[in-house]
Amino acid sequence: MASSFIPVPAGSDFPLGNLPLGAVVRGAGGRPSLAVALGDSVVDLKALHVAGLLSLGGPVGDGACFTHPTANAFLDLGPDAWALTRAALTRLLTASEGVLRDKGGVRDAAILGASTVSNVLPMAVGDYTDFYCSRVHAQTCGELFRDPEAALNPNWSRLPVGYGGRASSVAVSGTPIARPHGQMAPAEPGGTPRFGPTAKLDFELEFAAVVGGPPNARGAPVPVDAAAARVYGYVLMNDWSARDVQAWESVPLGPFVGKSFATTVSPWIVAAAALAPHAAPAPPQDPAPLAYLDERARTLPDVALTAEVVPAGRGARAATTVTESNVRHLYWTFPQMLAHHTVGGCVLRAGDLVGSGTVSAPGARGAGCLLEATADGARPLALRGGGSRTWLLDGDEVVLRGRCAAREGVEGLGFGCARGVVVARASARERALQ
Amino acid sequence: MASSFIPVPAGSDFPLGNLPLGAVVRGAGGRPSLAVALGDSVVDLKALHVAGLLSLGGPVGDGACFTHPTANAFLDLGPDAWALTRAALTRLLTASEGVLRDKGGVRDAAILGASTVSNVLPMAVGDYTDFYCSRVHAQTCGELFRDPEAALNPNWSRLPVGYGGRASSVAVSGTPIARPHGQMAPAEPGGTPRFGPTAKLDFELEFAAVVGGPPNARGAPVPVDAAAARVYGYVLMNDWSARDVQAWESVPLGPFVGKSFATTVSPWIVAAAALAPHAAPAPPQDPAPLAYLDERARTLPDVALTAEVVPAGRGARAATTVTESNVRHLYWTFPQMLAHHTVGGCVLRAGDLVGSGTVSAPGARGAGCLLEATADGARPLALRGGGSRTWLLDGDEVVLRGRCAAREGVEGLGFGCARGVVVARASARERALQ
Repeated sequence: MASSFIPVPAGSDFPLGNLPLGAVVRGAGGRPSLAVALGDSVVDLKALHVAGLLSLGGPVGDGACFTHPTANAFLDLGPDAWALTRAALTRLLTASEGVLRDKGGVRDAAILGASTVSNVLPMAVGDYTDFYCSRVHAQTCGELFRDPEAALNPNWSRLPVGYGGRASSVAVSGTPIARPHGQMAPAEPGGTPRFGPTAKLDFELEFAAVVGGPPNARGAPVPVDAAAARVYGYVLMNDWSARDVQAWESVPLGPFVGKSFATTVSPWIVAAAALAPHAAPAPPQDPAPLAYLDERARTLPDVALTAEVVPAGRGARAATTVTESNVRHLYWTFPQMLAHHTVGGCVLRAGDLVGSGTVSAPGARGAGCLLEATADGARPLALRGGGSRTWLLDGDEVVLRGRCAAREGVEGLGFGCARGVVVARASARERALQ
Repeated sequence: MASSFIPVPAGSDFPLGNLPLGAVVRGAGGRPSLAVALGDSVVDLKALHVAGLLSLGGPVGDGACFTHPTANAFLDLGPDAWALTRAALTRLLTASEGVLRDKGGVRDAAILGASTVSNVLPMAVGDYTDFYCSRVHAQTCGELFRDPEAALNPNWSRLPVGYGGRASSVAVSGTPIARPHGQMAPAEPGGTPRFGPTAKLDFELEFAAVVGGPPNARGAPVPVDAAAARVYGYVLMNDWSARDVQAWESVPLGPFVGKSFATTVSPWIVAAAALAPHAAPAPPQDPAPLAYLDERARTLPDVALTAEVVPAGRGARAATTVTESNVRHLYWTFPQMLAHHTVGGCVLRAGDLVGSGTVSAPGARGAGCLLEATADGARPLALRGGGSRTWLLDGDEVVLRGRCAAREGVEGLGFGCARGVVVARASARERALQ
């Protein structure tokens, strides 16, 4: 494994083999620059472009896309351009290569301490879709809210069930999560619905693809075996959910206000190329999928996922890992999700976000959300050092992490984290409305 | 009523009091210009700006937004800027005003025959939401698919039910509609689902708001009495639907592939300001809405809507008006939809599209979609001059129109139309997949 002249701490999420793509701002209100993360540093792609180091020709052309404040133009270029860029960045940052290493001025301009910049959302999200691809999650939700004997709806094992999320809800890690207010079911059938702050605020531990490549034409589906080429990479995602609001609103058209207030994503998009050495066979499917979902070789990235709750006022030492799961538990792969998504002719555009749904795993600590972990609030979850939670309280922080383990000849890498603190919403105008 | 020096045919949808906003392209592949429609002409706002006629100061500033290819920057400015622009355009185009009338060069550059340009989508749609606000539509759908005795779900009269549509599906009038393929329920429970072109292709006659104004902050709802200021104007919308695909996929998360292939909108956004003289009282609500939905004065624009089907191969003379409805039949107003949409803290951005859902009216010709008109295919609909339809066939064209009638002292105006022809999808790759 090549190493960089930029120091990378042992066990860092961001070794030279990762180079995840993000957008950073120096100082308040600055224009974002595209960047990759390396150890505790970030490498500013705009600065490299200005120094003439990213005019790579071929599908990248003069590299003008690296001067944009979002990655959409770069994502639009497709796999050949991504591979060319990845190879060029790897070379530029390798210890044995002097092109960047020995250019003090460019190094100073392009290589920044991660703590000196802020991350912003690296892509403008044209559309955000959320699927429901974890069998454990669907099964548990079905047992809680449907007939336990027929927990999985008949369509679930035939197609990746999904719905349209809210693109404007997508926010970068660190964005505070204002507890949503909303309408909830009446205390008694036929009564007046309740209104106020949600009493059932939940997280959902998810994994999401960031779409790239030129858009498919309207009416022209992406075949399942061509769909991997439409995924640039992946992020961690927290699909915050107000369960009481969601329960009342979502028949017959699905979740709406209960989901659209916030969706946190990790700031760095880990390229599918970086995850390739970490591919694992996807679980077998029974019944066999229809032809348009029949992928030649079904794999999922072997990414261990965790969710931690840091309880309000108790600090990081009291953090409790409430979920231990893995992306490889998903029943449907991302190419299957994309093939199904587009089978009717839907257009996928670069920057679109496609979430897996809650990634739950079998076992006591596998529940990817509090709804499952607490059986809809019936079984409080004990926290380390005392206390418990059924739902999130104001001041609680949720931190999602993802990590691919090192193996013989393959270095480990990670996703950083997707974090958010719950805050109460309380403006005078709001109080007046209640 | 003032008249323009540009001739406006009697009964035109686009008199001087309308001035709807669109985006037009001259020739193939050109850059779109923002424009307003007037009679059979379009007035290019970029050309007016270049001539120095739209640097209006105040909230409009130097008018640079009029040089953009989409209206988003202009929509973002908010009501004061819209009013200033509307007043300036009205003055410039009035018969008695010489500023533009007498400047031959500018007139030639700015005033074009509508037939010499093509319309493109005037706004980049950040998010598209579709509601379900017609009581007749919800009642009929409930009778068809739920318990006829309890056709309306308990939440329906308590909140505007809605869901996230697909922004990438939104297309300007005239875009061909490729019949979607997809998965449909098995012939027998537990069997293998069917796959192929939808056999139940439907239209939905809708009316949709185009959002404007600076985005509300995340977590800060738009109060119902402030929500009208977030609507720039309205378009006609056809929410094409594959009913068999939708029926199989939409439990529990709502419609997805059955809707995301195409959503046609009329090309000209009719400003809320133009519709103000056509406001009608909204239907009374029982039960009374919760405080956050309790709007001081509930009105809806009095827009008569029609849907016509032009059957394949039979030409415009065989067009059958299959729906006669009116926006004023909606149970929830647009400010109520927006207040509910944002009550959890969801961000609305300029360019967002908010559909009413199918606008059905009481009575034999009131059904706003074939699902209702044919009782889910059970009762074929007779067409003029012979023939009938349960669902749309390849080659059929659907044309939606909207019109506000003239009254004493108030001129009539209209929306133009939202049209689309159904075409078969048949590429070699597609056939190979089936």
